[in-house]
Amino acid sequence: MRKIFGGALLLFAGCAQAQPAAENAPHFRSGDRLQRPANYREWVWLSSGLGMSYLAPEEASANPAFDNVFVTPAAYRAFLQTGKWPDQTMFVLEVRASQSKGSINQSGHYQGALMGIEAEVKDERRFPGKWAFFGFQGGADSAGAFPKSQSCYSCHAEHGAVDNTFVQFYPTLLEIAKQKGTIAH
Amino acid sequence: MRKIFGGALLLFAGCAQAQPAAENAPHFRSGDRLQRPANYREWVWLSSGLGMSYLAPEEASANPAFDNVFVTPAAYRAFLQTGKWPDQTMFVLEVRASQSKGSINQSGHYQGALMGIEAEVKDERRFPGKWAFFGFQGGADSAGAFPKSQSCYSCHAEHGAVDNTFVQFYPTLLEIAKQKGTIAH
Repeated sequence: MRKIFGGALLLFAGCAQAQPAAENAPHFRSGDRLQRPANYREWVWLSSGLGMSYLAPEEASANPAFDNVFVTPAAYRAFLQTGKWPDQTMFVLEVRASQSKGSINQSGHYQGALMGIEAEVKDERRFPGKWAFFGFQGGADSAGAFPKSQSCYSCHAEHGAVDNTFVQFYPTLLEIAKQKGTIAH
Repeated sequence: MRKIFGGALLLFAGCAQAQPAAENAPHFRSGDRLQRPANYREWVWLSSGLGMSYLAPEEASANPAFDNVFVTPAAYRAFLQTGKWPDQTMFVLEVRASQSKGSINQSGHYQGALMGIEAEVKDERRFPGKWAFFGFQGGADSAGAFPKSQSCYSCHAEHGAVDNTFVQFYPTLLEIAKQKGTIAH
């Protein structure tokens, strides 16, 4: 199964709507359940990949999905200045199906139906390892953190270029991290 | 050659930096030369495709590029409300090389070097057809509009789902346009 942040992805309906800027921070309720961010499509987009996988091409999916990564605007601006992620940084990974033929397009891939969203949050007081990962399955409006035993935690810690995040796949931020000397792996 | 907005794309250096919100409108100088928007990476991202082409798969490039589309935030918010693009709407199409193997990634594609940027601007008083297209070649900081004879004008007019724009390739906005009944093609 395709995993980046580590959660199962289920199809759900709905699309992002405009929300006030106050929504651009992680909100928790009922303890440590993260509220699904309604306006992540208005955050700063970092990059998109198609069919990114740990698997070799011959083992990978014949129906590749797009992964779109967004980060909260305040965290983005801090990163431009420092090459580091401040407390309360939140990422959303949005996964969408790909399509090939439609309108004038005859080959290659463009984006289609939403397949799921996951989140990665830095909260130094709330989480022992500072970061936690969440999957909003089936259109849920809140999610508890994945258990620390999930591979997302160890993979991000061991392979994320900067502080548990895959900055190596975000070309404009990779340049910043190189300039600031903040690349760990 | 791969074309969406219709201009030749040349490699150039540089990356987006944070800019004040006042930069989020088209700026012209020396008559109708559009200033290259410095902060388009902080606008609202609409979608990304990989290797999108008018050509059949067997004729398409073996080295597909990513195309990333951004729109000015005020125009995006207006579209959410109306399903239409207001005057002073500006799009940027950013083209980046794709890469397949790096870090933990073994297959699929992620984004690499910047190959070029183009822009599409709606200015009802400045342009006879309301919209014009620009290519910032070789890292130029301003660009004149492509001539009306370029195929970008006729293709966007004839095939763009909403008002000269390819909303059919922007899944969240396509839902809005369907709700608002603003799809032309």
